[in-house]
Amino acid sequence: MAQVQRMSRLMVKTLRDDPADAETLSHKLLVRAGYVRRNAAGIWSWLPLGMKVLENVSRVVREEMDAIGAQEVLLPALLPKEPYEATGRWDEYGPELFRLKDRKGAEYLLGPTHEEIFTLLVKDQCTSYKDLPVMLYQIQTKYRDEARPRSGILRGREFQMKDSYSFDTTDEGLAESYALHRQAYIRIFDRLGLRHKIVSAVSGAMGGSASEEFLAPAAAGEDTFAYCPSCDYAANTEAVTFPGTGEPADASAHGPVEVLDTPDTPTIETLAAFLDVPASATLKNLLVKVDGEIVAVGVPGDREVDLGKLEDHLAPAAVELVTAEDFAGRPDLVRGYVGPQGLEKVRYLADPRIAAGTAWVTGANQEGKHARNVVVGRDFEVDEYLDVVVVEEGDPCPTCGAGLKLDRAIEIGHIFQLGRKYADALQLDVLGQNGKPVRVTMGSYGVGVSRAVAALAEQTADEQGLCWPAEVAPADVHVVAAGKAAQTELALSVAEQLGQAGLRVLVDDRAGVSPGVKFTDAELIGVPKILVAGRRTAEGVVELKDRRTGEREELPVAEAVARLAAR
Amino acid sequence: MAQVQRMSRLMVKTLRDDPADAETLSHKLLVRAGYVRRNAAGIWSWLPLGMKVLENVSRVVREEMDAIGAQEVLLPALLPKEPYEATGRWDEYGPELFRLKDRKGAEYLLGPTHEEIFTLLVKDQCTSYKDLPVMLYQIQTKYRDEARPRSGILRGREFQMKDSYSFDTTDEGLAESYALHRQAYIRIFDRLGLRHKIVSAVSGAMGGSASEEFLAPAAAGEDTFAYCPSCDYAANTEAVTFPGTGEPADASAHGPVEVLDTPDTPTIETLAAFLDVPASATLKNLLVKVDGEIVAVGVPGDREVDLGKLEDHLAPAAVELVTAEDFAGRPDLVRGYVGPQGLEKVRYLADPRIAAGTAWVTGANQEGKHARNVVVGRDFEVDEYLDVVVVEEGDPCPTCGAGLKLDRAIEIGHIFQLGRKYADALQLDVLGQNGKPVRVTMGSYGVGVSRAVAALAEQTADEQGLCWPAEVAPADVHVVAAGKAAQTELALSVAEQLGQAGLRVLVDDRAGVSPGVKFTDAELIGVPKILVAGRRTAEGVVELKDRRTGEREELPVAEAVARLAAR
Repeated sequence: MAQVQRMSRLMVKTLRDDPADAETLSHKLLVRAGYVRRNAAGIWSWLPLGMKVLENVSRVVREEMDAIGAQEVLLPALLPKEPYEATGRWDEYGPELFRLKDRKGAEYLLGPTHEEIFTLLVKDQCTSYKDLPVMLYQIQTKYRDEARPRSGILRGREFQMKDSYSFDTTDEGLAESYALHRQAYIRIFDRLGLRHKIVSAVSGAMGGSASEEFLAPAAAGEDTFAYCPSCDYAANTEAVTFPGTGEPADASAHGPVEVLDTPDTPTIETLAAFLDVPASATLKNLLVKVDGEIVAVGVPGDREVDLGKLEDHLAPAAVELVTAEDFAGRPDLVRGYVGPQGLEKVRYLADPRIAAGTAWVTGANQEGKHARNVVVGRDFEVDEYLDVVVVEEGDPCPTCGAGLKLDRAIEIGHIFQLGRKYADALQLDVLGQNGKPVRVTMGSYGVGVSRAVAALAEQTADEQGLCWPAEVAPADVHVVAAGKAAQTELALSVAEQLGQAGLRVLVDDRAGVSPGVKFTDAELIGVPKILVAGRRTAEGVVELKDRRTGEREELPVAEAVARLAAR
Repeated sequence: MAQVQRMSRLMVKTLRDDPADAETLSHKLLVRAGYVRRNAAGIWSWLPLGMKVLENVSRVVREEMDAIGAQEVLLPALLPKEPYEATGRWDEYGPELFRLKDRKGAEYLLGPTHEEIFTLLVKDQCTSYKDLPVMLYQIQTKYRDEARPRSGILRGREFQMKDSYSFDTTDEGLAESYALHRQAYIRIFDRLGLRHKIVSAVSGAMGGSASEEFLAPAAAGEDTFAYCPSCDYAANTEAVTFPGTGEPADASAHGPVEVLDTPDTPTIETLAAFLDVPASATLKNLLVKVDGEIVAVGVPGDREVDLGKLEDHLAPAAVELVTAEDFAGRPDLVRGYVGPQGLEKVRYLADPRIAAGTAWVTGANQEGKHARNVVVGRDFEVDEYLDVVVVEEGDPCPTCGAGLKLDRAIEIGHIFQLGRKYADALQLDVLGQNGKPVRVTMGSYGVGVSRAVAALAEQTADEQGLCWPAEVAPADVHVVAAGKAAQTELALSVAEQLGQAGLRVLVDDRAGVSPGVKFTDAELIGVPKILVAGRRTAEGVVELKDRRTGEREELPVAEAVARLAAR
């Protein structure tokens, strides 16, 4: 886009109505304002205005990555299968990976993230400890075949991402590369004008030890995070841990186990209603298969098991829910009426709240019967305590114990200390100072570049439309010619002056479009400053409006230009 | 890359030896100098130095596209099948198209070029003649599953391309959009420092009327073009046409047809040797199937048929070579001994050189026999004249008749006047001035961005290595510290001064690397100016060398900096 872009020559078609399939604010507004257009589920085109914002975000990311000494490269998106087989991710990714064959039948994938390929690159390029540390990044198109692509560009199947990778010989080196990225990310999101929180995260399928997420709080966010109103603790809910163990109780204070007739109460709800006890007094026993072995997981009846957390705890073992077939031939497992006091053959994992000496209402291992006063340590033993419940508002802060708050957010960045997982799988060593091979330790860092555009739209838009922060806006000033010839002439002249002052200008010089439509479009498009050549054009007076605050002021052209140029 | 890039911190591993699989100069040198790295057949990574050159090329392309008012967008690379089915290209592309399915079984392709998708975009965004003309471009990763990916980044399966598309309501408008692109391309290649020729081309599978190629002459080129040393004619050999028809002769000057015993002479070579006549005196009759019907094509025995040209002439009919099975049940077709004088049932196409009244040696339609004095118009008729022979050096220039010269080149750009082919297939209309729908006419224009890097390397490299023009070089100056501490100190100080003067500097501050290796690497990497802090460091004198000319000069630091900064 030239410094002065005339709307009469810009391909932009604004829409008055929200697209039928749009759920989130950013999806609605980016489509209505002509920034993006859908080609297929989760596959989008960036139109001229959107492209400008995308490039601005990319530029900020690039500048901050360069500033920490990361080197820009561009690796292929079409990748051979073999390295991903070596690390197991060819299978682990499941249906999320786009796979294809070439004309010779060789198998390829469209890269969802590039740990393997960067590891092989550094293995080829770096041979000595002297060649490290090295940090490499790329801004590239990535592919993930999401089960439910939605929310416009917020969760696409083809999207733009900045991914970078650090390579060090020592744990301290990795910590430093990680810290550099963490600082760079803070600067990036600050410059973009994105409100963000850094939260502890679990590494998941990526592997490795420490990881943190950068979250942009927004109602449309698909991530839930917990934060403490009393201290600075914040974490992805998957990463929140229950502090210590639950309060132990005196086992002898409870009466003996009592078996009750509780017909038709296979769920916690039916049981609590039947016995008129709170769900929190009952013990829920979830049966799962861990690498094929049936295991029971006990949590208070009012809590849900977070299967993601459970998988993370038990990784690399595979976790599946039990099926009706699994109950066949297991008379000890009575579906809907399981209790830990009768499960000698089954490993019993429990939430820390199932503390020693506490008493519970739970299944009696007989159809239609439950037991009361089932006491931990007296009537059954917990084989292992695991923190696997879904975090809820009010749960204790792991740091200070205050009640946690929950909020929704969009994940805009993620930083990982991968450690040696990929270097081990692909044998990445360099010669150390002592002449012996040293296994390299890695970090991996991502910024969702296209997603950041959507997150910005979510956080900054108002009822009138988009409302961009200056650094990413498609222009600095939107000049509107109200409609008459003299107004258009003045608008073009002001636009020219602003362009010469180094500002990026969008000027609405469209003929045959009413002033009302032009004003509405200017609000919708969301350039930070709007300058109108309107009814006082003959006097050389224009109106200057701040898109965000709505403040408006009439002033002579020269003053308006000077004010905008001074920024 | 920062303004001053230290080589001690740059990921670059130079190689002394050419990679085993490299055939072309650019392939060898770009790998040896650490610009690119191969990931799979035709799939490459751009390393830090290569990335810088790629970005410089992209920047020049972007600036010149913006300058003609084209608007930058970014369309997806992963594309749904349906639009390509509508235009027939889903099938026409054959195995060159990467095809894949998503998790739901829907079919997609990786875009080789985007005519369909841009047509649909404009159909959605532009509704009135007032919205046109519009020119849109993107710089994007493209995919073609080449049968023989080779020559490094010159012919990859994943590559970077600038593609643009113009949309007009009139033929004059299209001609103007085409002319704007033609001028922009000249400026682009001139700025990049690429020697280039604009040649007439055939449109091929792209469809449409007029098209020209931008070729960069280079020994490694896979395209052959013809040019006239006497006038300014130049064309891709496929597009060269024979001027007019061949010289007619007097049929009555020839004796009657004479059938000769010519045992074991099924080829032109064996026949010419047996009869001791030049191959040019014989008539070669190639049998092909055109939409299933057997057709003969006659050309002088010393010429080859260009099947591409034949296909272009006969399109949209499909052309196949005949097989042994096709001869079965056709006693009139005697393999190896076909002559047009016995082919009443077969349509006969001929090269214009087979002119009226000329006499030929050709098959006698009997095993082991040929005929002499077979005269055009007396003994057989030509149903249609077609120019289908492979052009050879010395063939007449279609413009002035002088003997053409041939040369090898790399195709770096291609511009097409597509006309209404895609608009027809996808019904792209806008409302005209008279309120009635007008079918839109299109142009399509491509620059091989990654290929331009290889073409530049081919044209500019010398025996020492790469030798970049200033506009695309990864740095302006390569400062070499010969090795001693004082030399490194001076080199870093000079680099800093140059950086502050706005120059992009690469400084070789590597410890433990000999001066000889550093000098060799500097030549190999090919930055235009090399500044050495060497033996006269104590005096504050450095050596300044021009990479291309090899001219060197010793001068005081301040003068060297001033000279470089003045550029």
